[in-house]
Amino acid sequence: MYQEQFMKRALSLAKKALGRTSPNPVVGAVIVDSEGKIVGEGFHQKAGLPHAEREALKMAGEKALGGTMYVTLEPCCHYGRTPPCTEAIIAAGIKKVVVAARDPNPKVSGKGIEILKKAGIEVVEGVLEEEASRLNEKFFKYIKSKLPFVALKWAMTLDGKIATITKDSRWISGEKSREFVHKLRNEYDGVLVGAKTLILDDPLLTCRIPGGRDPYRIVLSGSGNLPEGLKIFSLDRERNILITANNKLPNHVQKGFSKIIVAYGGENKVNLNEAFLELTKLGIISLLVEGGAQVHASILKNKLADKVYLFLAPKIVGGETAPGPIGDLNINFMKDALPLSIRKVKRFEEDIFVEGYF
Amino acid sequence: MYQEQFMKRALSLAKKALGRTSPNPVVGAVIVDSEGKIVGEGFHQKAGLPHAEREALKMAGEKALGGTMYVTLEPCCHYGRTPPCTEAIIAAGIKKVVVAARDPNPKVSGKGIEILKKAGIEVVEGVLEEEASRLNEKFFKYIKSKLPFVALKWAMTLDGKIATITKDSRWISGEKSREFVHKLRNEYDGVLVGAKTLILDDPLLTCRIPGGRDPYRIVLSGSGNLPEGLKIFSLDRERNILITANNKLPNHVQKGFSKIIVAYGGENKVNLNEAFLELTKLGIISLLVEGGAQVHASILKNKLADKVYLFLAPKIVGGETAPGPIGDLNINFMKDALPLSIRKVKRFEEDIFVEGYF
Repeated sequence: MYQEQFMKRALSLAKKALGRTSPNPVVGAVIVDSEGKIVGEGFHQKAGLPHAEREALKMAGEKALGGTMYVTLEPCCHYGRTPPCTEAIIAAGIKKVVVAARDPNPKVSGKGIEILKKAGIEVVEGVLEEEASRLNEKFFKYIKSKLPFVALKWAMTLDGKIATITKDSRWISGEKSREFVHKLRNEYDGVLVGAKTLILDDPLLTCRIPGGRDPYRIVLSGSGNLPEGLKIFSLDRERNILITANNKLPNHVQKGFSKIIVAYGGENKVNLNEAFLELTKLGIISLLVEGGAQVHASILKNKLADKVYLFLAPKIVGGETAPGPIGDLNINFMKDALPLSIRKVKRFEEDIFVEGYF
Repeated sequence: MYQEQFMKRALSLAKKALGRTSPNPVVGAVIVDSEGKIVGEGFHQKAGLPHAEREALKMAGEKALGGTMYVTLEPCCHYGRTPPCTEAIIAAGIKKVVVAARDPNPKVSGKGIEILKKAGIEVVEGVLEEEASRLNEKFFKYIKSKLPFVALKWAMTLDGKIATITKDSRWISGEKSREFVHKLRNEYDGVLVGAKTLILDDPLLTCRIPGGRDPYRIVLSGSGNLPEGLKIFSLDRERNILITANNKLPNHVQKGFSKIIVAYGGENKVNLNEAFLELTKLGIISLLVEGGAQVHASILKNKLADKVYLFLAPKIVGGETAPGPIGDLNINFMKDALPLSIRKVKRFEEDIFVEGYF
């Protein structure tokens, strides 16, 4: 029981850095002395900065000797941008290490634990493992596939519409739901939208919560034919990325993006898999896809989606031609529907919020 | 606290008769003697049969003297098909009456309680009032408006579709959800579907749970142009009702229904308000509407809907032309959407079930 409490603390430290550490995982560590007192805490703040274990050891100083370390992810044992944490843990005289989840990185998995055990340190695994794995679901996906973790997000009415027959869509969901979207933007490396949505809604795609940081704004446009004067062009272009199939782009488009990924998949058609692999090379390992219906459909057809965030608003607009959230998937029979596993159903004020995994 | 326990018992007795008492409410009653022992119980089983209070008094016999009666709805004080319950309660020497909800019927409301008080009986009101009112929401609507209580029911995918692009719809929701629909059919007086749905799906519209009773099968067809050989024509025609705008119907259609309501609202167009008033005259005071999209839309446009039962299945089918649950409502702006108040969100296995009120 007390093990879980200390691990919870380590997890909450790790959470502080969500969206800041890519392509690294978020990690938190807590050091407890022999009397059960917390003497060191730390978390990995950013790729290139010290790992959580080292931060906690630094804070604990000599008090680490004979202590127990709670760490949300298996300590690394390889030289990356920083030296291996296993060395530091052994050197500090830590007696016991409690690990939530193993590192899925094949360079590390199990090996870090092995090294600690060989040094005579007691290792306990699996404490709050599921929570820890969820917390790093984006990193886990990336490490295993080199592809980004991709979440589709939409808000729809109780009758499944993302806009009225005249394409009006403001607002479907309530304030709390929209605030939560900004929290998601804070945690995802990039927000992706299709050209149609960008042109129609002209969104900022920024993260508007206190202390939040803007995600990369990633635009998917086969033709790259975007009008001048879009709001995102007035924002920091360093965070604007275009994915396109066209390498002859108008000047204002070239100027509007710091990075242009040309992934040719046919006439005005992007090779999504290739483009997404390029994104992870830029350190963008998670994407929040905010529409529209065609973009969602393309991603689903390419089996690139991992998760859905659905906001279901308690209102009805009706209309045969009012748009739904997902474009054509060429699914003819209900038995061939793409199944999801629902993980969470909760309320944001009047809205119903659903989290599901493919 | 003990008051609530006895009232809960009375409510659970009342529930036994859900769907059996129309156009009367469901009512349960419990009589407790001075030592807190239940000496009488009863519920109203069917219009024309004794009221709950009389059933409980009958069971209690002389033990009712000096006892307390818990009753889910205010006792009646008027002569209907049965003499007033207030008389029987007074005659039996009941000392105290605990009432959950007042009768919304203007012939009774408050008057039953007044008569009891005048006879020297202590009356407590409002114990589990909300639960009792919900239990009789169908009756309350009918008494106040002379219109039936109307619930729209649909199952849709996570992307808001009630069928694929080829109109395939079997199955969207899971077994538990479908079983719950049969429970609803058991509690609603009538199930209503549009001609399109009837022809496309050819449903039985029966209640297939142990001890269930079939609702009236009510078909809405402006033209009345229904093909021969539909499954419902092979069932008890006494429970088949047609609502139409056409008084020149083919022979097999006339033969297929025990009752044909002609409510002319234009060429092949039904006057829904008029038709629904006719239904309540037949004792059908609650309707479960099971589609299709056009029927739902017509009912919504006429402001005749009270409730929604939504089954959201964790699957995606996509498709711009795949149908949604609600047809055209002429709503152009999201701000003009029809709002609902969500009362319940729960799971049926993998499905998400939502209950909302207009």
